[in-house]
Amino acid sequence: MAIRPAGELDKPAILPIIAPVLSAGETYAVETDLTEAEMLGYWFMPAHEVFVFEAEGEVLGTYYLMANQGGNGAHVSNCGYMVSATAQGRGVAAAMCEHSQTRARERGFRAMQFNHVVSTNTRAVALWQKLGFDIVGTLPKAFRHPLHGFVDSYVMFKSLT
Amino acid sequence: MAIRPAGELDKPAILPIIAPVLSAGETYAVETDLTEAEMLGYWFMPAHEVFVFEAEGEVLGTYYLMANQGGNGAHVSNCGYMVSATAQGRGVAAAMCEHSQTRARERGFRAMQFNHVVSTNTRAVALWQKLGFDIVGTLPKAFRHPLHGFVDSYVMFKSLT
Repeated sequence: MAIRPAGELDKPAILPIIAPVLSAGETYAVETDLTEAEMLGYWFMPAHEVFVFEAEGEVLGTYYLMANQGGNGAHVSNCGYMVSATAQGRGVAAAMCEHSQTRARERGFRAMQFNHVVSTNTRAVALWQKLGFDIVGTLPKAFRHPLHGFVDSYVMFKSLT
Repeated sequence: MAIRPAGELDKPAILPIIAPVLSAGETYAVETDLTEAEMLGYWFMPAHEVFVFEAEGEVLGTYYLMANQGGNGAHVSNCGYMVSATAQGRGVAAAMCEHSQTRARERGFRAMQFNHVVSTNTRAVALWQKLGFDIVGTLPKAFRHPLHGFVDSYVMFKSLT
């Protein structure tokens, strides 16, 4: 098992992980009708440092790390994580989140913020809490869930200092 | 007095309003060393719908309106407001904020969110509260104020429905 920077050659393995998540539109506040090229363009946008979680030569998850704001807010990082549907429940997301915190500290970030954790994504909320993130804000009905309608999202935050 | 969409011809009047605010780095989490062209590029980025507040032929303030997130978060809007140093305390920001809410409703937005209101910007915090925004989150030490060091920022939110 290894978590390593993603490169151009990883895109064919990353696409089938991110495409179903983005198309479902249940957890990310990102357009749900992107083409495959646009999906990869989003995940690999210049501001994103992208990593993959690999086990036995297979990519099981991917995450990005970026500065959440610019200028005098640039000491707070932000990440997004996605795990292959076939690798749920095996600790891939937790491992990537721990890795991202280490990498964020390396890059000099002092905190990590998730801007929009959909409240119905209870597994993610519980995992981030277990890993030391607090719910520091609740955005009322800020997400239009395709099944549940308008639901709250959380702002989650962890100091890295 | 009028609030109207900003055009190319307004850029020379907008620059002296936004440049000191961005350079000071006390209220916006945006790079503080932008060139004039980059400042205008930021304010007029494609996602921003930009307006000016004009009185007696003079531009006294400007704001932008945008979707705060994409996809299933795109019903929440976001704005940034700036007032000329010479026109502070005359209700320009309040008028622009009211205008932006009307415009946001016109465009179908259901709420408005400010992601990063620096806690030391007490005048802005009080004004947004007076205009119906709630502090729904506190981001601990998320802003590195050039005078006060690390200070909290607030997430502020108002339903428009």
